[in-house]
Amino acid sequence: MTDQTRDLLPEGLEDRLPQGAAITSNIEQEILQVMDGHGFDRVRPPLIEFEKSLAGRMDGVQPRRMFRFVDPTSLRTLALRSDITVQVGRIAATGLAHAPRPLRLSYAGQVTRITGDQLEPSRERLQVGAELVGADNVAAAGEMVSLAIEALEAAGASGISIDFTLPDLVDTLAASAFPLDAAQVENVRRELDSKDAGGLRDVGGDAYVPLLYATGPFDQAIEKLAAIDAGGALASRIAGLREIAQRVGNHARLTLDPSERHGFEYQSWFGFTIYADDVRGALGRGGTYRILGCDEAATGFSLYPDPLVDALAGGTSRREKLFLPLGHDRSAAAVLRKEGWRTVAALSEGDDAAALGCSHRLSGDSPVKL
Amino acid sequence: MTDQTRDLLPEGLEDRLPQGAAITSNIEQEILQVMDGHGFDRVRPPLIEFEKSLAGRMDGVQPRRMFRFVDPTSLRTLALRSDITVQVGRIAATGLAHAPRPLRLSYAGQVTRITGDQLEPSRERLQVGAELVGADNVAAAGEMVSLAIEALEAAGASGISIDFTLPDLVDTLAASAFPLDAAQVENVRRELDSKDAGGLRDVGGDAYVPLLYATGPFDQAIEKLAAIDAGGALASRIAGLREIAQRVGNHARLTLDPSERHGFEYQSWFGFTIYADDVRGALGRGGTYRILGCDEAATGFSLYPDPLVDALAGGTSRREKLFLPLGHDRSAAAVLRKEGWRTVAALSEGDDAAALGCSHRLSGDSPVKL
Repeated sequence: MTDQTRDLLPEGLEDRLPQGAAITSNIEQEILQVMDGHGFDRVRPPLIEFEKSLAGRMDGVQPRRMFRFVDPTSLRTLALRSDITVQVGRIAATGLAHAPRPLRLSYAGQVTRITGDQLEPSRERLQVGAELVGADNVAAAGEMVSLAIEALEAAGASGISIDFTLPDLVDTLAASAFPLDAAQVENVRRELDSKDAGGLRDVGGDAYVPLLYATGPFDQAIEKLAAIDAGGALASRIAGLREIAQRVGNHARLTLDPSERHGFEYQSWFGFTIYADDVRGALGRGGTYRILGCDEAATGFSLYPDPLVDALAGGTSRREKLFLPLGHDRSAAAVLRKEGWRTVAALSEGDDAAALGCSHRLSGDSPVKL
Repeated sequence: MTDQTRDLLPEGLEDRLPQGAAITSNIEQEILQVMDGHGFDRVRPPLIEFEKSLAGRMDGVQPRRMFRFVDPTSLRTLALRSDITVQVGRIAATGLAHAPRPLRLSYAGQVTRITGDQLEPSRERLQVGAELVGADNVAAAGEMVSLAIEALEAAGASGISIDFTLPDLVDTLAASAFPLDAAQVENVRRELDSKDAGGLRDVGGDAYVPLLYATGPFDQAIEKLAAIDAGGALASRIAGLREIAQRVGNHARLTLDPSERHGFEYQSWFGFTIYADDVRGALGRGGTYRILGCDEAATGFSLYPDPLVDALAGGTSRREKLFLPLGHDRSAAAVLRKEGWRTVAALSEGDDAAALGCSHRLSGDSPVKL
């Protein structure tokens, strides 16, 4: 094995070098700080758990997509987490089962998956999120959408847009206004996913066709959804969406795609996807759900800020660096660090202030421009 | 499988709940901030690498102690990192090979190992550290010891003490003043490790016996070390230790144990271990070393702050929380958050401000004590 192959990282895994790492860390801290201000307490679950535990709390978490290995201690299968939300659900249901509700928790950490996909080849990414446990009403949904927007703006995102969806729409309609049998439900979902009006009619889902057109900018789309005569089955959901939109409409562009299900495998009545200018793909998603096992209602969101790092890479300006020559006054340097300077101390006569990225040099107790 | 067993975490892995998580995150940020002030740029390597890559840059990193698994993409063995220092060494030798030296890098992240030990059963812990690449002289060593102390003090540690060692002491003496053959070197090391004067004499290491007594408080122990007649073989090391001690002696208690090797498998002429009051075991260690492969000199340290979290758990006071009743003035709440309040918004009439840990309630645009 040559040096070169030894140094290659596995496909889909990469280092963040100083510039990208600084932006990533800043984004992470800004998001956490906004969440903290709104009363969300951070928890820190481990990187590894029993596979069964990671798969057992929510639908849509697929063990086959996680790195798995046998634990020599317990002889059971462990997995590297692919999603921190399920861990926070476990904490809410166990260690914090008796904490007062609603319980506000936040988290940040790396998650991995065994294979990337064409759109997103990365196998490791940063996940930062918040979960409001014990509430899934309109007030909870409004708080979480609003929090996600505020957190991403603090992190430097601009031109945020939110796409609302109703993840259990087909279930709701199939059980009331537009009845379907179990096999039909699956067919109707599939045809809605492929936005195929002809296909919908072929599988007996004629009543569902208008849903395909209740999409686009929120104000128009919600009118179209309201016009679908579903005997009031959607009334509370539509009122809820309008209330959330009312609350956040000044802070983000809003759209509606009521039958969108991708990425909402465990959400209940409400879901949302977050986009921002200059960021490829979604920055995150969230919604209402139930924690399996304890069946408690919750509302939350997860952000995946890595694409934002690239979007912000052009505009960064790091703090200026101050070169400290050999034999410099150490207490003067400490004072200047307190004032916000970054210092770089010489270790030998050969150290070159300019090459080391310094803009100033300490002379006596004052910085002098190089 | 019952709910209860599903919820158990594997042995040696645990959640940090809100109080512990807040302290952990604060320690991590304070340490990183001090490092940043001294010009160390953070890098963020991935959680997973090729096993060969993690094992290949430094002595003392044992693949058998890492969680390993086959990558379905490359069909090669991957490992979950057990040490971030080796990753930073790789980055310095590859992605930042052409960055000016000395190169100052910092890092923070979770590391895991497949089995804990009796003293420290934990299989996952936080590692935070700094590496100064391209220098291993006395100035570099002094800077790194001083930085470790300043970082830990900022993180809340008190009563810091530093134990100095000379990791390549036996190699140095065996090659000059006190000659030993290769088999004897191993025997002498073993007997020094067990502090056994009789054993040392039995293996022909009589000349090494005085090293066992050159230990304890730095000022006395360094005199004893200097008194060992080694034909000047130790002179530069002793002068170096004195210079480092001079620099940091006002900030920490200093001790010397020149033949201590535990945890210094890859260090060269200088090593140090860090302790603090009320913290069980070492908080970290560091020293000079060479990055394998590129054979570049470096000086660095790693801190493992988890035991400090427990030591600080008694003294925390979180910011006061302000309850926001239904229909509150949202812009007043935003202003108060900017001023440093944490807010907790009501989601229904049933939300209980006191039960949710709030000390105040928003009335109009002002906080009122509950």
